[in-house]
Amino acid sequence: MPKLVDHEKRKKQIAEATWRVILERGMEGATVRNIAKEAGLSLGALRHYFSAQDELLVYAMELVKEQAEARIKRVAAENLPPKEMMLKILLEIVPTTKETMAEMEVWFAFTAHARHKKDVFDASHDGIFTAIARLIHYLDEMKLFKKELDKDVETEKLYAIIDGLALHAMLEPSRVDRNRIIHILTSHIHSICKEEQENSGVGHL
Amino acid sequence: MPKLVDHEKRKKQIAEATWRVILERGMEGATVRNIAKEAGLSLGALRHYFSAQDELLVYAMELVKEQAEARIKRVAAENLPPKEMMLKILLEIVPTTKETMAEMEVWFAFTAHARHKKDVFDASHDGIFTAIARLIHYLDEMKLFKKELDKDVETEKLYAIIDGLALHAMLEPSRVDRNRIIHILTSHIHSICKEEQENSGVGHL
Repeated sequence: MPKLVDHEKRKKQIAEATWRVILERGMEGATVRNIAKEAGLSLGALRHYFSAQDELLVYAMELVKEQAEARIKRVAAENLPPKEMMLKILLEIVPTTKETMAEMEVWFAFTAHARHKKDVFDASHDGIFTAIARLIHYLDEMKLFKKELDKDVETEKLYAIIDGLALHAMLEPSRVDRNRIIHILTSHIHSICKEEQENSGVGHL
Repeated sequence: MPKLVDHEKRKKQIAEATWRVILERGMEGATVRNIAKEAGLSLGALRHYFSAQDELLVYAMELVKEQAEARIKRVAAENLPPKEMMLKILLEIVPTTKETMAEMEVWFAFTAHARHKKDVFDASHDGIFTAIARLIHYLDEMKLFKKELDKDVETEKLYAIIDGLALHAMLEPSRVDRNRIIHILTSHIHSICKEEQENSGVGHL
C-alpha cells in the first residue's frame, strides 16, 4: 500500500511543521496558512490531508503522545533493574532534552488552547497517570515498594512531581536543569523503596 | 487622595473584568475591546487606565499574585501549629475553591500566552518557590523536619507537587478534588516530618 504509507508520512511531516510553528510563534501563530508555509505545501495541498485546523492540531498532539509512549515502551523492554527502569521512564516524560522540551512546549500551548474548546479536544487523559500507577504497582510486585506507604497516594504524588517538574523545567530551565531533575527523581524513587535497597547510595540506582 | 483611590479601584475593576473574559473565552478572547465591554467602559475610558493590552494583562496577573500573597500572609499570622499552618498555606495555592481555580485558569492561560512574549512578561518568578523554601526552613527550625532529608531536595519536590496538583486539579477536577488534594498534602507533610509527631494519625495534623 505505497499510497497509504505516503499519506501517513506526509501527515506526519505536516504535524512536525505544526510543532515547529507552535514552538516559534505560539498557538496564536499556528494558523493553517503558517503551517502550510512551514511544511512547504500550498494551502490546497494541506487541506487535502486536514480539512480543518482543529483536525490538524488534534493529529499533531496525538503524535506527541504516540512518540512518548513508543519511547516508554522501548525503555520498558530493556530489562533494566526496576528502579533504574523507573528513572529512565520518568526521564522520557520530564523534559531534559531538546526533543522532550519541545514536546512539553507543544503540550502546554495546546492544552491552554484546548481549555476553551472542550468539544473538540480532550487534553486531560494523556495516559501518564496510568503509566505511573503501573510503575508503582510494578515496584510493589518486585517487593521494593515500602509497605507503610499507600500506593494510591504515591501514584498521585509522583504524577504531580512529574508534571510539576516538567512545568518548572520549561519555565525555569536554568534552575531546573537535567542534573537537578535526575537528582530529585532519584531521591524520590529511593524514598518510596525499601531501606535494604538503598545501601548503594542515592547517586547509584 | 480620593482621586488616586478611585483610580486604583477602577484599575482593579478592569483587572477583574479581564479575568472573567479569560475564564470565559480564553486568552484569544482577551482583547481590549472585549475587556472594555465586560467592564462596562468605552474603549477610550479603558485606554485612560491602560494604554496597551500587554500593560493591562501584566497588571491583571500581578493582582492574582498579590491576592494569593495576601491570603498566605493572613494564614501565616494566624498562629496555627506548624503542620496545620503549612497545609492551610498550601491550600491557598493549589486550587480547591472557585476563587483559587479561577486564579489557576488565569495563570495557566496567561503563562501560555506569555511564553512567546518574553520581553513583556516574566511568568516564571511567581514567588511560590521562595514561599515553600521558607515553609521547609520553618519546619526545620521547629525541629519537625526529618534530619535524614535534604531541605533543598524537599523544597523542589514540594514545589513540584504543588504545581503538579494545581495543574491536575484544573485538568481533571473530578478525580483531583478538594478532599483528594487535602489527603495527598496531609500525607506528604507527615512524610517529611519526624515520626514522634505522627502519633495522632494522618487525618489529624
